[in-house]
Amino acid sequence: MSDPIRVIQYGLGAIGQAAAQVVLTKPGMQLVAVVDSNPVFAGREICGLPVHESLPDVAADAVIHCTGSSFAGIYDQLAEIVGAGLSCVTSCEEMLFPRYRNPDLAEELNNLCISNSVGVLGTGVNPGFVMDTLPVLLTAVSQSVRSIRVLRVVDAGTRRPALQRKVGAGLTREEFQKLADDGSIRHVGLPDSLAFLAAALGRPYDNIQESLEPVLRGDGRVAGVKQVASGNGLTLELQMFVGAPNPRDEIHIEGNPDLHVVVQGGTPGDVATPAILANMLPRLLEAGPGLHTMATLPLPRMAS
Amino acid sequence: MSDPIRVIQYGLGAIGQAAAQVVLTKPGMQLVAVVDSNPVFAGREICGLPVHESLPDVAADAVIHCTGSSFAGIYDQLAEIVGAGLSCVTSCEEMLFPRYRNPDLAEELNNLCISNSVGVLGTGVNPGFVMDTLPVLLTAVSQSVRSIRVLRVVDAGTRRPALQRKVGAGLTREEFQKLADDGSIRHVGLPDSLAFLAAALGRPYDNIQESLEPVLRGDGRVAGVKQVASGNGLTLELQMFVGAPNPRDEIHIEGNPDLHVVVQGGTPGDVATPAILANMLPRLLEAGPGLHTMATLPLPRMAS
Repeated sequence: MSDPIRVIQYGLGAIGQAAAQVVLTKPGMQLVAVVDSNPVFAGREICGLPVHESLPDVAADAVIHCTGSSFAGIYDQLAEIVGAGLSCVTSCEEMLFPRYRNPDLAEELNNLCISNSVGVLGTGVNPGFVMDTLPVLLTAVSQSVRSIRVLRVVDAGTRRPALQRKVGAGLTREEFQKLADDGSIRHVGLPDSLAFLAAALGRPYDNIQESLEPVLRGDGRVAGVKQVASGNGLTLELQMFVGAPNPRDEIHIEGNPDLHVVVQGGTPGDVATPAILANMLPRLLEAGPGLHTMATLPLPRMAS
Repeated sequence: MSDPIRVIQYGLGAIGQAAAQVVLTKPGMQLVAVVDSNPVFAGREICGLPVHESLPDVAADAVIHCTGSSFAGIYDQLAEIVGAGLSCVTSCEEMLFPRYRNPDLAEELNNLCISNSVGVLGTGVNPGFVMDTLPVLLTAVSQSVRSIRVLRVVDAGTRRPALQRKVGAGLTREEFQKLADDGSIRHVGLPDSLAFLAAALGRPYDNIQESLEPVLRGDGRVAGVKQVASGNGLTLELQMFVGAPNPRDEIHIEGNPDLHVVVQGGTPGDVATPAILANMLPRLLEAGPGLHTMATLPLPRMAS
């Protein structure tokens, strides 16, 4: 057996701490440091390790990075990680398909990866798996594809409180609209999933439509959101609200053949997101250097 | 856009001819020759091309190979293809995970691939996709996996006559048992799928159990088969019989999280098998040389 992958956990929010816990369960991985600049962690230990406020100079192979949703916003952190000769799996939603929003920055990061002989990958469950990687894989048995529709229904009532706030649960319609207008309710990553899916099928991705509307409770307040991205024959619909019936991930591929695939109950993001962040580390390390996507790495699977 | 992939179709049975038809629909591919040694094709044209009785010396990039189920039985054909500097996607069931039955031959073929700078891949729908590649991908969101059970139910009445004969439809119990005993009814590839799945999860694959029994019709004759392979917490069950109710592919992963995925109606092999053979060509060509599996190539998807 080869040496364990030495992992630094960068970002200690809910997902980051959960990813560090997954690393601790893997014989093929070793958690060597944890990092978070938030003063709330100053002097504390997480997973038995002292929290560094910035990337420490320790012997390591790779970083699991969970700090922000905006590629431009985390670029300096990624550049520092790559510059230190470390590969990186990040939960940053815009990194699922970085060429979509920031082609220049993606090119710059790719060059930096190559000159430092490391790889960077953005992944997660959504974006990262249920509405993009999984439907792309299903087209492997398609002679032709006319359209793809993915529906993800999440009962926000079963998810962590941060997610319930994120979908606006409990707000009035007016409060919701205000937050929707300034972008703070929007689930980041739906158009990114669509662009990834389009590119994987050789379709253009420059004309993606988005809509966002509240789902209302019986008392007229907001239960959550229904968000749709569409374009080029592809439609991704995300329903996340408290009390959503029949939670599931459902993929319809119209073509030859038609395919209809259902993940019964849905893929539980709170467990699955930290899992996939850790699981992709060996795949990223065995791929060549560069800025990768879920479509360029060997078949994703659970790491040991 | 890069030059089309120049493809030779080797083997012109039902699946081979269907694969050649798929190649004809792809702008990114060009069918340059067709090959079959069966005298029935002598002097004939298939897909507008004269049928060669052996591998012709034409400019090409890759071969889709559909002649037999046994790795040892087709080794010489593969060696000739590789020796001619051509990459090859084969439908040979035992090539899904060639190290399982023939580790020495696999090593030999891998070396031959490397010295000729080409790749070889075995794939299909079953084995190749529904009971192996798809469940492996689903574990990417698993923190841990206790067991996996895949159930594929095929209504053989909706499939080509050759498949109905293959599952023994219409035989008496005694006729079935005779053919089962000499191995001619067995669906080849179920233990291969299990070994592939086990290896992808880092589990051993040296202790795989198999069973095969007839499913009987109302009149006591055989409707088809129920075949099971199991070992190391993994169970693959294939039911193929005329009139099978609720055809589907169903994957249960017990672990953290539990996952339950259903391909409603099932993945139709007659359409999907030729599709995946053609679709994997660009993925094989972009991977490095060697004997590949579905787990070592970039994410499978429909080719353009």
